[in-house]
Amino acid sequence: MAAAPVEPIGVGLLGYAFMGKAHSNAYKTLSYMAHPPPYAPQLVALAGRDEAAVAEAARRYGFAGYVTDWRALVADDRVQLFDNSGPNNLHAEPSIAAARAGKHVICEKPLGRNADESYEAWREVRAAGVKHMCAFNYRFVPAVRLARQMIEGGELGDLFHFRARYLQEWITDPEFPMVWRLSAAAAGSGALGDLGAHAIDLARYLTGQEVQAVSALTQTFIEERQGEKVDVDDAFAAAVSFSGGVVGTLEASRFCPGRKNALLFELNGAKGSIAFDLERLNELRVHLPGSHPGAAAQGFREVLVTEADHPFVQWWWPPGHTLGWEHTFVHEVHHLLSAIRDDTDVAPHGATFEDGYRCAEVCDAILRSARGGRREEGRDRQA
Amino acid sequence: MAAAPVEPIGVGLLGYAFMGKAHSNAYKTLSYMAHPPPYAPQLVALAGRDEAAVAEAARRYGFAGYVTDWRALVADDRVQLFDNSGPNNLHAEPSIAAARAGKHVICEKPLGRNADESYEAWREVRAAGVKHMCAFNYRFVPAVRLARQMIEGGELGDLFHFRARYLQEWITDPEFPMVWRLSAAAAGSGALGDLGAHAIDLARYLTGQEVQAVSALTQTFIEERQGEKVDVDDAFAAAVSFSGGVVGTLEASRFCPGRKNALLFELNGAKGSIAFDLERLNELRVHLPGSHPGAAAQGFREVLVTEADHPFVQWWWPPGHTLGWEHTFVHEVHHLLSAIRDDTDVAPHGATFEDGYRCAEVCDAILRSARGGRREEGRDRQA
Amino acid sequence: MAAAPVEPIGVGLLGYAFMGKAHSNAYKTLSYMAHPPPYAPQLVALAGRDEAAVAEAARRYGFAGYVTDWRALVADDRVQLFDNSGPNNLHAEPSIAAARAGKHVICEKPLGRNADESYEAWREVRAAGVKHMCAFNYRFVPAVRLARQMIEGGELGDLFHFRARYLQEWITDPEFPMVWRLSAAAAGSGALGDLGAHAIDLARYLTGQEVQAVSALTQTFIEERQGEKVDVDDAFAAAVSFSGGVVGTLEASRFCPGRKNALLFELNGAKGSIAFDLERLNELRVHLPGSHPGAAAQGFREVLVTEADHPFVQWWWPPGHTLGWEHTFVHEVHHLLSAIRDDTDVAPHGATFEDGYRCAEVCDAILRSARGGRREEGRDRQA
Amino acid sequence: MAAAPVEPIGVGLLGYAFMGKAHSNAYKTLSYMAHPPPYAPQLVALAGRDEAAVAEAARRYGFAGYVTDWRALVADDRVQLFDNSGPNNLHAEPSIAAARAGKHVICEKPLGRNADESYEAWREVRAAGVKHMCAFNYRFVPAVRLARQMIEGGELGDLFHFRARYLQEWITDPEFPMVWRLSAAAAGSGALGDLGAHAIDLARYLTGQEVQAVSALTQTFIEERQGEKVDVDDAFAAAVSFSGGVVGTLEASRFCPGRKNALLFELNGAKGSIAFDLERLNELRVHLPGSHPGAAAQGFREVLVTEADHPFVQWWWPPGHTLGWEHTFVHEVHHLLSAIRDDTDVAPHGATFEDGYRCAEVCDAILRSARGGRREEGRDRQA
Repeated sequence: MAAAPVEPIGVGLLGYAFMGKAHSNAYKTLSYMAHPPPYAPQLVALAGRDEAAVAEAARRYGFAGYVTDWRALVADDRVQLFDNSGPNNLHAEPSIAAARAGKHVICEKPLGRNADESYEAWREVRAAGVKHMCAFNYRFVPAVRLARQMIEGGELGDLFHFRARYLQEWITDPEFPMVWRLSAAAAGSGALGDLGAHAIDLARYLTGQEVQAVSALTQTFIEERQGEKVDVDDAFAAAVSFSGGVVGTLEASRFCPGRKNALLFELNGAKGSIAFDLERLNELRVHLPGSHPGAAAQGFREVLVTEADHPFVQWWWPPGHTLGWEHTFVHEVHHLLSAIRDDTDVAPHGATFEDGYRCAEVCDAILRSARGGRREEGRDRQA
Repeated sequence: MAAAPVEPIGVGLLGYAFMGKAHSNAYKTLSYMAHPPPYAPQLVALAGRDEAAVAEAARRYGFAGYVTDWRALVADDRVQLFDNSGPNNLHAEPSIAAARAGKHVICEKPLGRNADESYEAWREVRAAGVKHMCAFNYRFVPAVRLARQMIEGGELGDLFHFRARYLQEWITDPEFPMVWRLSAAAAGSGALGDLGAHAIDLARYLTGQEVQAVSALTQTFIEERQGEKVDVDDAFAAAVSFSGGVVGTLEASRFCPGRKNALLFELNGAKGSIAFDLERLNELRVHLPGSHPGAAAQGFREVLVTEADHPFVQWWWPPGHTLGWEHTFVHEVHHLLSAIRDDTDVAPHGATFEDGYRCAEVCDAILRSARGGRREEGRDRQA
Repeated sequence: MAAAPVEPIGVGLLGYAFMGKAHSNAYKTLSYMAHPPPYAPQLVALAGRDEAAVAEAARRYGFAGYVTDWRALVADDRVQLFDNSGPNNLHAEPSIAAARAGKHVICEKPLGRNADESYEAWREVRAAGVKHMCAFNYRFVPAVRLARQMIEGGELGDLFHFRARYLQEWITDPEFPMVWRLSAAAAGSGALGDLGAHAIDLARYLTGQEVQAVSALTQTFIEERQGEKVDVDDAFAAAVSFSGGVVGTLEASRFCPGRKNALLFELNGAKGSIAFDLERLNELRVHLPGSHPGAAAQGFREVLVTEADHPFVQWWWPPGHTLGWEHTFVHEVHHLLSAIRDDTDVAPHGATFEDGYRCAEVCDAILRSARGGRREEGRDRQA
Repeated sequence: MAAAPVEPIGVGLLGYAFMGKAHSNAYKTLSYMAHPPPYAPQLVALAGRDEAAVAEAARRYGFAGYVTDWRALVADDRVQLFDNSGPNNLHAEPSIAAARAGKHVICEKPLGRNADESYEAWREVRAAGVKHMCAFNYRFVPAVRLARQMIEGGELGDLFHFRARYLQEWITDPEFPMVWRLSAAAAGSGALGDLGAHAIDLARYLTGQEVQAVSALTQTFIEERQGEKVDVDDAFAAAVSFSGGVVGTLEASRFCPGRKNALLFELNGAKGSIAFDLERLNELRVHLPGSHPGAAAQGFREVLVTEADHPFVQWWWPPGHTLGWEHTFVHEVHHLLSAIRDDTDVAPHGATFEDGYRCAEVCDAILRSARGGRREEGRDRQA
């Protein structure tokens, strides 16, 4: 197969919690599963503030070293790709610094705590001329990618509706402690930026249209935890219209018992419909009535997206052998490394910092609409 | 069982199309299935404008006679219950006339074409002192009634969310003809009054809260059919807050391929969640985590609502022997006849003209919000 | 529409319990729903042993009279159709007597308590020259009929597999009382004749093949109830081969908690597959991969069998307005009355006494195989 | 966390196709995901006959070397664990040789091509005193393990039924080529050993009972491919009874269009039921009626087996972040390495060579029953 040797690429990673673990696994798995990989990732160093913990994590995931200040990663010449898996308030500044230092950047979502911060990040990385990716990993679910392919191929016809809701249950209990995700200073917003951002990004990616206007509300059900004020939304809901005429709803909440990680969306077009539930990540529900065969037997198909010709599946297993949530990161990192190697655009299939910024504009518009009671439009700043 | 003989009640029915057929079937089935019935319905006369057609329908459904002017029903002393299954523009006037003539009234939804018309109808029937029902038949789905019982019983705890969408596909085709449901003069509104009204009524019924504010949009995808202007909404979407703190979304559309008659709702509360899909009318999905048994095996239960102790089921079949859509009307009419016989309130389980009116206020608020781009509240007029 | 007047047909019904209620409802509903009906059923008399109860039931369902000895029905000249909804040990003798008296006969399943009794019933009614039907009502589920149409039309290609299981839960509790269905003298067999017979009939109907050989076992989990011996099977399981090469399994049990009335079957053919669950009576799951549209999105379709061109649906409601279990009886009786009026065959879509007999041969073979430990073939007696 | 350094263990792997890839991935992932691992696997050498291919695979998966004769693995002192992922006809001999050489052995299923071969393998590895595992990886699906825990804990009560079917579609097409899995000399049997073996192993594992008697049939639908005779079964079906009174069915087929990798099982007990479908690997369906909460709302729960306290989940992601098929191998290898490190039994949660042998006895009994038409019992040889 691969006659040419695979070049190495040095990776510096900020963060070793949930996202850091998922990204580490992706770099390690990539090399032998998506074989030959675009680059052979070299895990140069891991950054974190707690020295004992970051040292242990570096050992665990196989990083050559660790640092307790992300600036050391930025300054490290061995690092060619800066992976920002830190908390939201550490997204913009380190990403910008890394790009200025000439490193390619992948940053977890949301890109910033608000549209201004996100815009600044986009403007800077773009000016630096590096490759940049905002890690909206659900674009890399095989079922989601298949949906996009079908929509792009015109199989749904003109689109009428997009509706999505991202529902979780984890803070329903009033005794659940105060964490950084419940603080505006650290997180920017609540369910909106954490969950809603994914739904907004998929809305843009799947319809190929920009969100034009939102009529929204937010709610904080439990306003104090452990004596601290919760100053972010527990949930939001919005009626939404898109630039190409699509209308629908967007919603997110962390107060939905029984919903563990339910990112649900549905698209309706003139020729058919598509629906998805992240809790059944390997499945896509597709309705495409047609003349033959089975003209009298139409209905939503339960498509198990594990066929050899389905997106990303060629790297993995035979039909019916399902993938998990973590695999989305392998696909995502593979996409970024390919773009770096071939100097191609990360867009449209990978989300760029521009996508991260445009999503943040929608989030801000939702917050403005919720506060002011008016329909709001996102701004359209250019880099 | 029934020692006392069952009294007759004379029924006059306006309309013999879809709804007239469903109501006729309910009166006929009621007598021997919900045995003994509160009254034995006597099908006195059927009203419709096309004499040949109404005569044939009267023969088919076993009405003693027919009339071509609904005023003749109102004037007929044998009629004690006036059943208005006519089109929306014939809801208010005949219902008011019948009530003034001392007849009990059941009227199909939406009660009027707008809140003013609906308010007038409510005010009048209330003043007449007769029993009045707005035929929101989905309150009489066993699964929906079970949901209400559980919520009332506190099994879900404090409610956080209600979200509903009512999706159909029948006018997706641009060649679908112009019909009265697509004209504002005849129907008042489009998907909103036809489908959305059901969702709004269930929102009020299930949460026990009033809709407080809506932020909405509407859309008409195909603006002309057969040379005539479609001046109603093809779809609407709204972010909604309720008087008791619940937030959520409401949505309806007739442009959703593959969705035949999908009225879907979900409620999330502090102790659990409930979900429903009208296309699976016999099922309720219920999540109620608890300590025992199966503490480690929690998730949405697929409840087949056909047990002997489930609402309405005692009249029908053993567990697992499912009911259909039409049975909701049998339950509904039974409820009304019981209220007449016992002089009890139609509310809270049956929808009254007040419920029809309050639903219409929400519909009007949605239209105002869609037009003006502002959050709107429904008015709270008293009879 | 119907210029010609509809002729009456006199119906005498034996039994007023579960099945009697379902049949009564069918005769009453038929007339105005499947309009115009083949005949207008006249409910002449109801037969039952408990005079007070049968009198009350006759009043409830609108029979003109009642009798306490079924022989009086047989002797009644006004009765042209004898409907046998009695217990299994009253299937053969009254059905034969009625046929000899020149009445058409519909008899509940199983036709007899064993193959000999069933054979005798078939031979006699056939000799009498009347129309005869064994009430395998699941042939009249719209989804089941659609499955048959697709198979007959070659849409599944050559068949490989048929597998069915009919699972209920109602005698899992050891405290459940001794009832006639648990006694061989009254019922013939247990889950086999009660539930398995339905599965066997559908196997024959859907594959169009005879069951050729069975390798089976039976089990009685609770051998005594209220001091009486349970001498029928609580469950059976069989590996089965068919005359045309299909292979599969058949199974029934009343010891499956959570399974209320789960008759599940699946067919696999060279071109596709079909699956069904009676608890979701309005749905058929259909897999028919094809080239277009959606070639990359293949999977089982959830077909809501409520379209106007689906079997039986034209009599009822618009798409998405579901039917219930009881509607199968309306379709079944309509089929029989049409066959009587037009002097056409009840077969192949209606089950005849021959079908009842052939099913009984399979049941007997299963019992022989369970007892003797050998593969058994059903006999092939001719009338 | 881990104060003690993790010891290395040398792994020699036979086979680099489907199973070899899955096992390689498991060794690599294990180290940092199930952290700290029982041993740090050192990938010593990979064995395969095609030198170019095995060399490439060794490079890809990170093996230090490769060999073209498995005997070289057996002779290699650095190898402490021999992993046999070769085809069925290479299961017994190399496994025995490795055990004799003092290496622990894990061997893919089926253990041998028949019971005799499997018995010999068991006897030999047992005599060698090494740890041995037969790679029935579905015991390591979190949902399956949860089912076992619940059954062991008595949550289902006494068991009545186990039924399983393993359905795939991949040789439905007559043009599908002749492969080793369709030849008795290479594979032993067809769907029986490949798919049925998994079902049989889960039957034994979940019920805790031995298969006592089988009444079975087999079928080969397409008897020749590319001019070669297919001399294994395309499908089998069996009625089965177990040593503790459970009865049910077992079935497997590769002729089921739309079924990609559908291993479905259901257990019914006195207190509840459990069902599973491998195509929805993260879910377990559990029915456990109880008094509270939601006493009126009972039904199968859709349990997403991703909670922190569910089996194996602590190594992975937060609730709702699903796993894939490949993760079962990580759990399996972790279990084996723990048993080696701690010198504990591989049984009961890991399948041993004894389990491989007992499964093979059931397979042989099924073939005998299919050929001879009699109920057959498996032999019960002791090592």
